[in-house]
Formats: sequence, structure tokens, C-alpha cells
Amino acid sequence: MAPMNSVNREIPLPLRGLEGAQPFGGAWARHAAQPRKLLSAGRPTKVLGSLEEAIRKSGLESGMTISFHHHFREGDQVVNLVMEAIAQAGLRDLTLAASSLTSIHAPLVELCRKGVIKRIFTSGLRGELAEAISHGLMDLPVVIHSHGGRARALLEGGIEPDVAFLGVPSCDCYGNARGWTGRSACGSLGYAMVDARVARTVVLLTDGLEEYPAAPASISQVLVDWIVPVDSVGDPKRISMGATRMTRDPRELLIARRVVDAMDAAGVIRDGFSFQMGSGGASLAAVSFLRQRMMERKARASFALGGITSQTVRMLEEGLVGALFDVQSFDMEAARSLGVNANHFEVDASFYATPDTGGPAVNLLDAVILSALEIDTDFNVNVITGSDGVIRGASGGHCDTAAGSALTIVVAPLVRARTASIVPRVDTVVTPGETVDLIVTDRGTAVNPRRADLKDALAQGGIPTVEIEDLAALAEGITGKPQPVEHTERVVGIVEYRDGTVIDVIRQVKD
Amino acid sequence: MAPMNSVNREIPLPLRGLEGAQPFGGAWARHAAQPRKLLSAGRPTKVLGSLEEAIRKSGLESGMTISFHHHFREGDQVVNLVMEAIAQAGLRDLTLAASSLTSIHAPLVELCRKGVIKRIFTSGLRGELAEAISHGLMDLPVVIHSHGGRARALLEGGIEPDVAFLGVPSCDCYGNARGWTGRSACGSLGYAMVDARVARTVVLLTDGLEEYPAAPASISQVLVDWIVPVDSVGDPKRISMGATRMTRDPRELLIARRVVDAMDAAGVIRDGFSFQMGSGGASLAAVSFLRQRMMERKARASFALGGITSQTVRMLEEGLVGALFDVQSFDMEAARSLGVNANHFEVDASFYATPDTGGPAVNLLDAVILSALEIDTDFNVNVITGSDGVIRGASGGHCDTAAGSALTIVVAPLVRARTASIVPRVDTVVTPGETVDLIVTDRGTAVNPRRADLKDALAQGGIPTVEIEDLAALAEGITGKPQPVEHTERVVGIVEYRDGTVIDVIRQVKD
Repeated sequence: MAPMNSVNREIPLPLRGLEGAQPFGGAWARHAAQPRKLLSAGRPTKVLGSLEEAIRKSGLESGMTISFHHHFREGDQVVNLVMEAIAQAGLRDLTLAASSLTSIHAPLVELCRKGVIKRIFTSGLRGELAEAISHGLMDLPVVIHSHGGRARALLEGGIEPDVAFLGVPSCDCYGNARGWTGRSACGSLGYAMVDARVARTVVLLTDGLEEYPAAPASISQVLVDWIVPVDSVGDPKRISMGATRMTRDPRELLIARRVVDAMDAAGVIRDGFSFQMGSGGASLAAVSFLRQRMMERKARASFALGGITSQTVRMLEEGLVGALFDVQSFDMEAARSLGVNANHFEVDASFYATPDTGGPAVNLLDAVILSALEIDTDFNVNVITGSDGVIRGASGGHCDTAAGSALTIVVAPLVRARTASIVPRVDTVVTPGETVDLIVTDRGTAVNPRRADLKDALAQGGIPTVEIEDLAALAEGITGKPQPVEHTERVVGIVEYRDGTVIDVIRQVKD
Repeated sequence: MAPMNSVNREIPLPLRGLEGAQPFGGAWARHAAQPRKLLSAGRPTKVLGSLEEAIRKSGLESGMTISFHHHFREGDQVVNLVMEAIAQAGLRDLTLAASSLTSIHAPLVELCRKGVIKRIFTSGLRGELAEAISHGLMDLPVVIHSHGGRARALLEGGIEPDVAFLGVPSCDCYGNARGWTGRSACGSLGYAMVDARVARTVVLLTDGLEEYPAAPASISQVLVDWIVPVDSVGDPKRISMGATRMTRDPRELLIARRVVDAMDAAGVIRDGFSFQMGSGGASLAAVSFLRQRMMERKARASFALGGITSQTVRMLEEGLVGALFDVQSFDMEAARSLGVNANHFEVDASFYATPDTGGPAVNLLDAVILSALEIDTDFNVNVITGSDGVIRGASGGHCDTAAGSALTIVVAPLVRARTASIVPRVDTVVTPGETVDLIVTDRGTAVNPRRADLKDALAQGGIPTVEIEDLAALAEGITGKPQPVEHTERVVGIVEYRDGTVIDVIRQVKD
């Protein structure tokens, strides 16, 4: 006699073709969600009374991995708050997987010392924490991911967050969340979207609880476990922190103009092209010159990608750009635009840059303008350690866009505060030279010898170029031969390339 | 001496904390995407010349699993086309995992006979294929999933599509796709979105190739491998096929009126409530009465869920409903609305109904109106087999919404064409009685004894109710004692509950 299930049906197990099948045991036997079969039942909610309660309910234990996003950059209020509560709860040996960390996270130094944090995964690191890590704060090296590499690792399981603590400017009681509404609106939640998808438990912190349904949402209710109202998730005014100032530095203006001349000579500025431009002086100035040139050429871009600034928003609103793909809003104007402009789209880090066969948006870039701390004569780029060997930068989307874009332009002043930017050998490689096509400095433009077609195009366009070795020599003539950075043998940081391999290590600096 | 990587950096392996790490071996060493480092390089494309080429490139082999969506319902042009090409390619023993199958898929009978199709997973089955399967066509039983159960199985790995063949009304050359634009616009791609996320290889078929970027998109480029232009993916006029006709059947109108009276007495029709209503005569009529009652009560619904019809679109446009969550557009008007109404949202099957801890939208339903082929005195509902035991229906979201909704109302005429709808024991259980609260027929309304609160509310509201056994007796009085369906012992179908357990089996009917 076959077993009867709970609706009194005989189930002749095992069933051919579905051998592991079990008989039905009741509508709510297998799932945590309880029936709401009472007329008096209110709408279900995931809102908790305190962060402490959320940490408890998340099942977080010592030794686990927690993740955060950095959309608020220097204005972030979540990481320190959560880490302090976790420390108070007596948890230790955690792996902190943040999409990036900034100077505001200096309090983490103490938590590393106390053993609350055992390991850090991040894209960027600045300020006191970076300084301390460079000097040997942590037992295990920090792992530096690119934005695309981090998304790949999250999706493939290289990073497995047990709990993601994600600050969101608005969400409803069931967890539909977004970043472009609410008093702390930060715009895109592109990095957080990937964490929400993969974390075992997702805790949202918010200072903007809305009525259900908060739609459209960037993070869906089906991914969210708990919600904690807090006073502030972040200060959106501190997202840009100088990044959107328009430069008056004549060297930066010169570089910007040369970038656009080179793009033009290379034939990139044509109808339907695409581009990404970072923040920072020369890059922002280049957007301004590019805008002029596009108007002259009557060339409309199909899309602009990346961290989005007020400059690119303006081009969208003027009709010069057809669409913005925004993984991170670099200023409050970009955050505002995301909520009102129909062709300003939020994209997650995977769509932006994950190197998978499906193909991220970086694969369709015609040109990207990237900055650099150092560039070497092999065209390798360092955006993570300073001339003193101390960590003070971010990998970000640098190597992702460099690999994907048809034309990758890296800009830097030849010399910065008596330090050469073009050097025989960069302190740390983040982006491999084989993906970098053009170096533009205030003292000359160098083409990667791999790009004979580009060299020809620039020559035909009357753009003078020099050899990269000449730029390095010129720089050394100004600064003198630099003292090599003194490192110990101890590895304090590992720089992963976007595919998960190790492109370089960062060694402890000598005190 | 530690190994050098391809940018000439010494990597002291193994690295503590990242033990499995490998040295960098070149920017494109690990990923299929080739560099586009030529100024003459055009935009990358995934568009192929033929379906045959796509099948070849997909890596599809005999014995694998392929998946399809049913957003075109009776107008679908994709399943037969692809299956014929697969048969021509000489492949066999495939598992066909479709979100549903309809009468238009009759040609599959022959492919089952020939051994091209070995097993079928689907939510619904109608017409010749259903008839043949009921009579023993296939060696392995067909597995019937609910919409939420199918999404759960896809996400958990119970169904593992090797290749998803997804018809889309529009997409760009890199695979950003959507259903609400293009000449074959079908509206929501809610079921297909889950397949795209999990299938090892995703092939889009389209009759509406657009310029890059087709944004916003329902299916992202990062999920798509190949694109095949075809003459037609489907006929949107055949999506509704009678489902949106307004009934004049007095029994259906009576049932509809009683449904709304019961909802009102139960206190459901209040500001901020939510509902789902299926297609079909009584349900559509109920929408119309509900609309009237909402205007009288000045009650605005926060959202309506599910298969969306022109009726609910009208309520959205009138401001009676705040938001539509559309997993499947039931007519061309709904498809149109999805493209133009800012508060008409496309949701995937997981958001709609997957029973996971995060919580699908069905969990927030205040009321759902569902139809039935049979209901028994335990309130169990059959929506899959007819009174002759032959498969002629669909599980769909029936058991998902019944479990999630605070008030689950099932409607049926007491007797249909001399067959009783209320019976002592349904032929096949799809939705367990414990999740069904109220049965409304043209001859009386019965409350599930589990719902004392509902019984009280109806009594206080002056709504007469009867016992379900009385309805069954009344039906039998009209139809006479029905002949029990004659089945063999052989299992031809397995009905999974949304949690993956077996709620019933379907046995072969005797010829």
C-alpha cells in the first residue's frame, strides 16, 4: 500500500522520473512563511525594532562573512554603525566584504586590532585604515577586487556573504528598496544589487520607510529578510566630495583637450558611439570638451556608462547621449536624474563589468577615459598605492573598462607634487598594459605599440605622439631618480584581476 | 623564487587567506570575450543566421533539458518551431520544461512518439497533447508545476535547463530584451525572466531586433548567449482567446456579485487593500462589480497582482488601483499598458509566487478569486483534469495565491454541462483545501470550517452561507451520482505542490 499524503491521496513512491519526490505534508510544512488566514491579519512586515535584533535574527556568527556597499562613499553611515553593533554583540573573526571603503571608515582600525574583523575584501581603501593596513595592521592580507571582479566573485561563490547589511534611502515594509527616492537619496544601488542577490541573509537599513509597494524597486522583496529603520544611512552631499568640481588647473585642461583631440582623430566621436568618463579634474574637463566636439560633429552617443555625474546627466537632457547606464551616481544631481529621466538607467555591477560570456556593458564601450596614480613603460597602471607604497586608491572599474573598451585612454599629469606619474615600473599593477591603448599627459601623448592602427589614425589626424619611454625619461629629468619604495617581504594586500587571478601583491611598507 | 605572472610580477604563492589563487595570465586568458581593440571593430553582436546554428552553438545534446515560456499562450510560434529544428538536428530524449503548453502545441505529440521528447515539465496542458498524455503517450509521467513552484525549482536546481529558447518581441544585438515593444508585443516576460537567469545557455528568438541599447530590458544582455531573428515569435491576438470576453451568463454574473458581497462583508474592500483576479467569465465579471463597490466605498487598492487584463488596467488608469504587478499580460491592452503606464510593473515568477523566506507578492494579497474544475467537500480544488480524467487545465498560480492570500475565494457554477463542480472527492488535487477559504457558486456560498472568523463576518454582513456537503448533495441531486472516472494504475502525471512535494498523481484514463 502506497503512502497517503496529507490531502489523503495515495502517492505510489518512488515515482518514475521524479525519484526523490516526497509526499505533500501540508501547505506550510516546508516554508517559513506563515499563513495569513485571518481577516484581522495586517500586511506582513520585515521591519525590526533594532539593529541588535537584526544581527541576532540574521544568524550571524563569529567567522562569517558580511558585506556592504559604498554608494554613499565619504558620507556612509552604515558600515561603522553595523560593525560597532557587531563588536558589541561579541562577534569576532569576521570577513568584511565591502564594495569599497573610504576615509570615513577609520574606526575599523580599532575593530581590526580587536579581532572583530579578520579579513577585508574591498575595491578601494583610503585614509587611516589604508595607512594602518599598509603598515601591517592585519594578519591576513586585504584582497582588492575590481567592480566587475567582485560581482563575478559574488556570483561564482568566491565571496559568499552570510549577511549583507545594505543601507537604502527608501524601502517598504517587505523590502522593495531603491536609492533615488528618500531624503538620503544616493541614486544607483548598482553594487548593492549583487550583494542582495547572493547573500544568505539580507538586512536592509533605511531612513526612508515607504508604503507598500515601493515600486519600481532596485532590490526586490524576495531577496530581503529584515529591515531596520535607522536615523541616517548616509549623507548624499558627501558622495561627490570634490569629485565634481570643474578644474581650472591648466595642466588638467590641456590633458582634457588632448584626450578629445585624440578621440576625434581616432574616429571615435561619431553618431551612435559610447563612452565612459571617470570623475576627477581632467576627466570632467574632458566631458566638457567632448560635449562641444559632439555638437560640432553632430554626433549623438548611444550611451554613457559607469559612475554618472551631473556632466553626463546634462548631455542626456540635451539629447547628446541616448541613455545613461548608472552603476553608481557620483553626485546628487545624478541621483536626482535617475529618478526623473526615463533614459537614465540603473544597472548592477554585473551588467556593468562582470567578465562573463554573456557580456557586460563595458564590452560595448568605444572609449573610456581613466585616471592613474602611476603608469609604467609597459603601460601597466597603478591606481591603488601611492609613491610611498601606501594604499590610497581604488581598483574600481579601471581594469574592467580598460579590457572592454575599444579605446582605453589613461590620463595623468607627467609629474605630481615632485613625483613622476610615468615610471619604468609601477609600484602595483592594477590594470595590465595590454588593455591600455593611449596615455595622455600634459607633456605628451604615447600610444601602446600594440595599437598600430591607433598610431596611424593619430598621425593622420595630426596628433603628435611620443614614446612612453621618452615620457618616463622626461619625468625623471624633472623629479630626479626616485628612491624606490621600501617594502618588507610581508604581503598586506592582494590585487585580483577581474578574472580572479592575482595581478600583483602589495607588501608592507617599512616604518 | 616565486613565480612571475604575465605582467612580470612575483606572486609568492600560496597566498595566506587566498590559498587557491592563481597568477594572472593575461587579460583575456580566462574569458571567452575577445578584445575589441581595433578602431575598425564594430559593436559586438550575438545575432546568428539561423536557428540551426543557434542549436549547434548552444551545445545542446540528446538527453538535455530545454525550456520555454508561454506568454503567447495559444499564439505561441516558438515551441513548435524550435522542437522541429531540434528533431531535424537528430537530437532525442530531451526534457521539455515549459512554463505552460496549450492546444497549439499538438505537433509535440509526434515528437513524443518519436522519442525526441522524453519528459515534460509544465504548468498546464490542453488539447491533443494533453489527451494523448492522459491516454499513455509518454513513458515518463508529465510533471505539473505551479508558477511559483516552477520558479522555485528553477532557482533551487530541481529544473536545470541546459538551453532556454525564449521568444521575445524585441531585443538588441547583445540580448537586452523585453515584451512590451515590437509588433508581436506580448507584455510581461515574467516567466521567461526566471529561465533566462538560470539556463546554462540562453537563446533568444525575436521578430523585433532593435538598436542597442534596448533599455529598459526585462532580460539582461549578461544572461543571453545567442539571438536568432525569426519571422514571428507569436501572435499576440491569440493570447486572450476569449479569456477577456465579458460574460452575459446569468449564473456567472450571480457568482460574481456574490463574490464581491462576500469580500465586502469580510471587510476586504478597504483603502489600501490588494487583490488578484483570474481571467474567465465569473472572475472578469467580479472585477467589474468590485470596481463599482470600490467607487462606492471610496476604497483605492494598493496593488493588483497576477495575470493582468484590460479590466485591471482600466482600474489603474482610473486611479482605483495604485500599482499593477504583471507576471503575464492576459490581453493586448495589458501589454500596451505595461509600456506606457508608470505604475504597471513587470514582475517575474519568483517575485510573484515563489515560496521562499524572502516572500513573494502572493504573501501580501488580501483577496484572490480563483476558478475551478472541481471542488470537494474538503475544499480541495482540481484545476487540471476534467470529469473524464483527461488533462485539460493548468496549475498556474492557483495553489500559490491560495496559500498566500488572506482570503481565497474559489468560484464555480454548481453544475457545468450536467457535471457537478462540488463533489465528495476531486479527481486530482492541485490546491489543498486548507488554503481555500470560501466557495462561491450560483447555488450557495460555503465557508471553510477552519475560517470561523470569516463565517462570523459573513453572518454579520447578512451573507447567507451553506455547508459544502449541502452543495455537493445539491449538485448530485441535479446530475445524479456521477460514474467514477476509470483509471488504470499507471501514473501519467505528477502534480507538484509549490514546495516541490507531490500533492497528487494523474493516472492513465481507460480507453
